[in-house]
Amino acid sequence: METLEAIGKRVSLKNRISPTREVEQEKIIKILDAARLAPSAKNTQPWRFIVLRNKQLIKTLVSEAFSEGNHVMSEAPVIIIACAKPGDDIIRDGKEYYLYDVGMAVENMLLAATDLGLVTHPATGVNEDELKRILDIPDEVRFVVATPVAYPSKDSYEEAAQERLTERTRKGLQEVVYMNSWGKPF
Amino acid sequence: METLEAIGKRVSLKNRISPTREVEQEKIIKILDAARLAPSAKNTQPWRFIVLRNKQLIKTLVSEAFSEGNHVMSEAPVIIIACAKPGDDIIRDGKEYYLYDVGMAVENMLLAATDLGLVTHPATGVNEDELKRILDIPDEVRFVVATPVAYPSKDSYEEAAQERLTERTRKGLQEVVYMNSWGKPF
Repeated sequence: METLEAIGKRVSLKNRISPTREVEQEKIIKILDAARLAPSAKNTQPWRFIVLRNKQLIKTLVSEAFSEGNHVMSEAPVIIIACAKPGDDIIRDGKEYYLYDVGMAVENMLLAATDLGLVTHPATGVNEDELKRILDIPDEVRFVVATPVAYPSKDSYEEAAQERLTERTRKGLQEVVYMNSWGKPF
Repeated sequence: METLEAIGKRVSLKNRISPTREVEQEKIIKILDAARLAPSAKNTQPWRFIVLRNKQLIKTLVSEAFSEGNHVMSEAPVIIIACAKPGDDIIRDGKEYYLYDVGMAVENMLLAATDLGLVTHPATGVNEDELKRILDIPDEVRFVVATPVAYPSKDSYEEAAQERLTERTRKGLQEVVYMNSWGKPF
């Protein structure tokens, strides 16, 4: 898929996951490779990913650490958790750049999944202590986001995404872009 | 350009900028549109972008607010500044998700630029107070990153990027991906 098309078609679809169709390991590797190639502040590459493929582990994790609205995730054949140690990245005037860098890597991951016909749905609302306990994540590492990776319940990504894409709301360019100075119309 | 190709070829190239070739406004709009379509925690869309096209303003900004190593940026025909108000996004257990969300939007921007044959080079090392003063950015808004957007000094993006891509270092998959639990080999 063309880059701008993938950027336009990427949409969060946790309710449209096929619980039965397996996701090939080759595709998971491509997705993680895309994440790994993201830029990062001073090339610190703070991101670490945990891939969950064990159905029982996924059920336990989602039921014990995820917020109520995310329980549908327990049907996902694969979940990828993104986390990082803040001290592995730069901290500038209080801004912890590990979050920014993980964001860039995760966006690569979501676009790669879209390109491969897979659906994702990043979620940040978890009980971090529970999640870290279950996955044996060290205290100093912070959870950032989790996403299911799955085939869509419909025949194709496009078919599954269509409805959500028409519902999607985004601020217009004029609301988020200024010219030469804050607040000046673009 | 195919999505996975753009992800693989995106590289930071501030020393290979054409200072004379103008960047079409249509391409800048495509890049900003890509940014705007990124996902964000609870769809907060906290990102704001300031586009600089005024040569004198760019020179002043780079010389007064950028660190020494980034002065080559003053030759860029366009600079895009990404910033956000932390309170516009969620803050969860001390994690300020505006940084994560801006990271996703900026990665879309960098990939769109790559797709359009343009070079970028995100930089975080600025004197934030000076930058905010010059661009009239409110106190409560945080600067996240600035990138030049330019045509490459060589004939094509590929030609300009080739050398940097061979130098680029990234941790291997095994160093950043675990299976089912922290530290377990993927």
